[in-house]
Amino acid sequence: MNSQSPAPDLSRLWSPKCVAVVGASTNPAKLGHIVLKNLREGGLKGSLYAINPKGRRILDVPTYSEIAGVPEPVDVAVLTVPAEVVPEVAGQCGQAGVKVLIVIAAGFQELGGAGLEREAELSDIAQQYGMRVLGPNCLGLIDTHTGVNASFVSAMPPKGSVAVLSQSGAMGTAILDWASSTGLGFSKFISLGNKADLTENDFLPALENDAKTSVVLAYLEDISDGEAFVVAASKLTRVKPMILLKPGRTEAGATAAHSHTGALTGSSDAADAAFRRAGIMVARSVQELFDFTSAFARTPLPKGDNIAIVTNAGGPGVVTADDVSEAEGLEVAELSDKTESMLRKVLPAAAQVGNPVDVVGDAGANRYQVALSAVLADRAVDASVVILTPQAMTEVETTADVIAKAASASGKPVLPCFIGGNTVMPGRARLAEHGLPSFDSPSRAVVALSAMAQYAHYLSAPVRKRNGAATPKAILVKLIAEARDTEHTELGGMAAAEAVAAYGIKAPPTIAVADVDDAAAAAQKIGYPVALKIDSPDISHKTDIGGVMLDLPNDEAVKKAFAEIMKAAKKHTKDADIHGVTVSPMQPTGGLDLIVGAKRDPNFGPVLVVGYGGIFVEAVRDVAYELAPVTKDDVTELLTRTGIGETLAGTRGMKFDQSAAVKAIMAVSQLMLDCPDVVELDLNPLRVFDKGAFSLDTRIELC
Amino acid sequence: MNSQSPAPDLSRLWSPKCVAVVGASTNPAKLGHIVLKNLREGGLKGSLYAINPKGRRILDVPTYSEIAGVPEPVDVAVLTVPAEVVPEVAGQCGQAGVKVLIVIAAGFQELGGAGLEREAELSDIAQQYGMRVLGPNCLGLIDTHTGVNASFVSAMPPKGSVAVLSQSGAMGTAILDWASSTGLGFSKFISLGNKADLTENDFLPALENDAKTSVVLAYLEDISDGEAFVVAASKLTRVKPMILLKPGRTEAGATAAHSHTGALTGSSDAADAAFRRAGIMVARSVQELFDFTSAFARTPLPKGDNIAIVTNAGGPGVVTADDVSEAEGLEVAELSDKTESMLRKVLPAAAQVGNPVDVVGDAGANRYQVALSAVLADRAVDASVVILTPQAMTEVETTADVIAKAASASGKPVLPCFIGGNTVMPGRARLAEHGLPSFDSPSRAVVALSAMAQYAHYLSAPVRKRNGAATPKAILVKLIAEARDTEHTELGGMAAAEAVAAYGIKAPPTIAVADVDDAAAAAQKIGYPVALKIDSPDISHKTDIGGVMLDLPNDEAVKKAFAEIMKAAKKHTKDADIHGVTVSPMQPTGGLDLIVGAKRDPNFGPVLVVGYGGIFVEAVRDVAYELAPVTKDDVTELLTRTGIGETLAGTRGMKFDQSAAVKAIMAVSQLMLDCPDVVELDLNPLRVFDKGAFSLDTRIELC
Repeated sequence: MNSQSPAPDLSRLWSPKCVAVVGASTNPAKLGHIVLKNLREGGLKGSLYAINPKGRRILDVPTYSEIAGVPEPVDVAVLTVPAEVVPEVAGQCGQAGVKVLIVIAAGFQELGGAGLEREAELSDIAQQYGMRVLGPNCLGLIDTHTGVNASFVSAMPPKGSVAVLSQSGAMGTAILDWASSTGLGFSKFISLGNKADLTENDFLPALENDAKTSVVLAYLEDISDGEAFVVAASKLTRVKPMILLKPGRTEAGATAAHSHTGALTGSSDAADAAFRRAGIMVARSVQELFDFTSAFARTPLPKGDNIAIVTNAGGPGVVTADDVSEAEGLEVAELSDKTESMLRKVLPAAAQVGNPVDVVGDAGANRYQVALSAVLADRAVDASVVILTPQAMTEVETTADVIAKAASASGKPVLPCFIGGNTVMPGRARLAEHGLPSFDSPSRAVVALSAMAQYAHYLSAPVRKRNGAATPKAILVKLIAEARDTEHTELGGMAAAEAVAAYGIKAPPTIAVADVDDAAAAAQKIGYPVALKIDSPDISHKTDIGGVMLDLPNDEAVKKAFAEIMKAAKKHTKDADIHGVTVSPMQPTGGLDLIVGAKRDPNFGPVLVVGYGGIFVEAVRDVAYELAPVTKDDVTELLTRTGIGETLAGTRGMKFDQSAAVKAIMAVSQLMLDCPDVVELDLNPLRVFDKGAFSLDTRIELC
Repeated sequence: MNSQSPAPDLSRLWSPKCVAVVGASTNPAKLGHIVLKNLREGGLKGSLYAINPKGRRILDVPTYSEIAGVPEPVDVAVLTVPAEVVPEVAGQCGQAGVKVLIVIAAGFQELGGAGLEREAELSDIAQQYGMRVLGPNCLGLIDTHTGVNASFVSAMPPKGSVAVLSQSGAMGTAILDWASSTGLGFSKFISLGNKADLTENDFLPALENDAKTSVVLAYLEDISDGEAFVVAASKLTRVKPMILLKPGRTEAGATAAHSHTGALTGSSDAADAAFRRAGIMVARSVQELFDFTSAFARTPLPKGDNIAIVTNAGGPGVVTADDVSEAEGLEVAELSDKTESMLRKVLPAAAQVGNPVDVVGDAGANRYQVALSAVLADRAVDASVVILTPQAMTEVETTADVIAKAASASGKPVLPCFIGGNTVMPGRARLAEHGLPSFDSPSRAVVALSAMAQYAHYLSAPVRKRNGAATPKAILVKLIAEARDTEHTELGGMAAAEAVAAYGIKAPPTIAVADVDDAAAAAQKIGYPVALKIDSPDISHKTDIGGVMLDLPNDEAVKKAFAEIMKAAKKHTKDADIHGVTVSPMQPTGGLDLIVGAKRDPNFGPVLVVGYGGIFVEAVRDVAYELAPVTKDDVTELLTRTGIGETLAGTRGMKFDQSAAVKAIMAVSQLMLDCPDVVELDLNPLRVFDKGAFSLDTRIELC
């Protein structure tokens, strides 16, 4: 339904002229009372009506016995009636011309069975009347700036710049409660519920364009229409950060895998590749969700990767330097000589003036101020983590004040960590008053800074123009048709090699033969030593069944190998369609073996996998993922995200044709885009020499 | 000094008959006043004296102008005088027969220069009089159970079972402050300071035998005498858990590396291997240090690895299941049919009765009680993480009560996570009152549970008897002597292969030759195809300089290769001592290449490294570390800690001689133990076939 519907006019949700609560109640414990009260007290600019069968005035709000009675057009109807009557009431709202429904009740899809049917019925009714639906099974919706509180959340949260998009009501309340204790304010709060109609994809453009929102916090349990999500989120993250927690990382991989790529690539890898592509900062825990939000909302982005640490205790400073060194995108800053000699002058002899800067245990607020200001003034420093441990001379609150002052003066992000308990609590509270984030362990600050640095890097890179699908190469279409004609769902070795050759991916000269004498003749033609491999569209893992014989030096060996392969193939795979064997030259050693694979994710489209190749690929698991389409820069970066890919640039005097590898990876991406029939593709290995790269084994699986 | 000293009688520290504060002061802001006050008010059983030049009575404590004046033998003297006079005062204490000094002042080794000298002087004086010294530059020492507070920590911490061993005073105060806010109590608190004399190794036996201590929390910036530490900590962890935070993970690797093993193995890898060997739970951040301590101190150990999750919000339950799946040593428990059908009966229709058990958003305390009790009663469940988000019907404090009750009744560890802010705070406080740990994010609870499960696993495994050093094999001694005679610090390829052969590690039949005709003759003898490799003790990475030619099919190719290798070797390494080349057979393909290496760590002794081998070993970096000596079980486990090692047990129809690989690794361990002259050893690759394993390239570096 989502992708068909026109972009909804959500301005009616944020600034409705008229809102009705259907199921309003005089009982203060009932949802229908709480929602009405929240709307009435939130500061709603438009008119408000209550709908209650008995028609008695509730909370001094004009009340009617049915929605049809409301004397003006209703923009938004909040349904607080039980699930059982929701379809009927939705029908009445549709007839009355309501534009948007917010359905609070649970008892739909999440129940299965009758609940599923009920949700389908609700969707049908909404579509019939052209109404949009938020929910069901949701908390509702809040806009602190327009004064709309169409939710049963206890009270209007404080105004601020964080927008929350939560698929779970429970996480929604936890987020609001957490923020209440840190003083963080909100712009919009959207509880998506079951997403019967409106999804995250409908709200992302509104949040992108909302001047009151500077950070988007999203908690999503599934992604509706992955490809549309990537498009919408990519647009949003160009103008503001989006932080996402999505459960279900480890669910995947339960289904049997046919290829190496299949075994390596779970649906969460596809999702992660999509989030990376869209510039979304992924939180891996509730803690990271909160920490990232706090850091992004309360500090500027770093302009570079170099982090200075200021501490009154040496050990935690070193722990933090460890964390910074290990964090993606961060470096321990090297302070300038000028800064160091300035610090040397103002700090006591026992102080450490290199980074981490140790102002020593007896530091009062003044020493923090001097040191932090000097460090932040250094051009080599892009951000700072400030550590405080409570000691005899420590001025907890005043230190919080001077940190806030220095941070504000510098315009650089400063993340304070006050380690301890009761003694440091007032300092943390003071930091929050100053609008600074605070952390109880430096590791948390570093992880948040790493996310900020990665986002800053994403923003500073030029936007890449990626080519979409083209007409698939004719030979590929023909080979797929042939496979379909013979009821195969896979292209055999020769056919697969031919198919990728049309996209410029080279293979060693290979001759397919059906009998033993032809095998020897082919070997002579190619030149000894040769390799023999089983040629059958029914056999994927040739080595596993004894279908590969390498390094055959002469005719005799080839003939013996042919017989053995045939025997092994027939033994292991009854009823297999065996074409014969392929004969190919032994490749010179010294190349570097990559796996280059692709898998079509049902939600996000083709996902590429690249990394260490060969038969131990699953054991070694040195791979990285990327969505198609890709640019050359995408692929170059993708390679550096694997250990083996980094060595492509050359290692210990060996040279590799990185450009050939990049071209092959781009070709795989293009093939997947062009040809939706292909669900999985494996080049394993793609052997990269100092000149050229060859796929030694190619597999293509069809849908 | 430490290793020479006899085991100190620390009972004098915990239960002194007589304590003197040297430098006691009438000024309440001075250390000499605070320490005296703490001792006086802490509940000290023995007598207490103040030493002050003016001899005026301070705090109603008998005061003398010098230590010699104290009318009874002084067990412990706490020196609160400035660093400059410490040596002089220490001398007076020595003459007066003081047994142990606690030196508070900073201004020693940590300052460098004069400070270093001063610390050496202090050590000399202590040794001269047979006095033991705690510090200098420390907070002092506390025993809450004997009433000794010989520190300047503000007040006596609450009694409890956690012992703290901290090298940093600042971390010490932060730990005490943190604990004060969680209600955690302490047994002993030891601030080690500069460790001029007494180190962690002196205190570990005391903590091991202290009935009042159930958990040891250690913060150590360096390890004094690593081998002694492993022995002492191993004994301690057999009876109680030890949690350690040690900064400096990433310092290492700055020195140039000669071998693959050298490049792969930093000093923090050695330390990590030592901590693993000793059964220590390593915290990677201040947060983990606190979380582990809280979990270990407040919940029983799990009897197995299966974790049940109970939650009132589906999403966080799934996030937690992700965390459990990814955590070392933990599994998501599969509830029994009985438990599930019982839950089905008592929970509402929308509830999820599989694990994670979702009691749904409107759950009150009662529903938590029913669900948690049922889950904990299931034999398939060893521990539980309970998640609460604050919703309309949530009973935060009562839920804390029922969790505590269910946990206590079950005897299983239960780790509660109340997600949110102000609303859930009273629940967290209530949990602390019940003596339960609590967490603000499930991920923290899971990491703590993982540490507990790993420790339980460590305890349940039989204690392994490991063989120490033996007499080195004669041929190894001879080869080393020959290398020394020719001023080499490395054994060349042939010599290294011969050396490890004495320990049972096989190499392909290899012939060393010095000229081109001998090379061809050797190749014929071995049988074509062959490999030629440069033979020189001065060339480590043969491939890098073009010193390896593979797959040579005939005499002509061998002769050509010989010439090329000689040319390359001379070009790349001037003045190299080139013996010629080695001729060896090409190995059949199909084996699995491991690296088996060892490096002698100056603190912890020989460290083994095992994992993915070959020329891309540093890129792929699929390796694990272990201390020598090792048992067969140690090595089998070591292998499973790498991706490639796991496949040794067989993969996709391929078989490997795991036992041959294990024997080779044990042999390397034994060689390193036997022969202290060897500082680094590389078998790379050790190629493991279906029968047998061969080192294709062996390197031995001498000290």
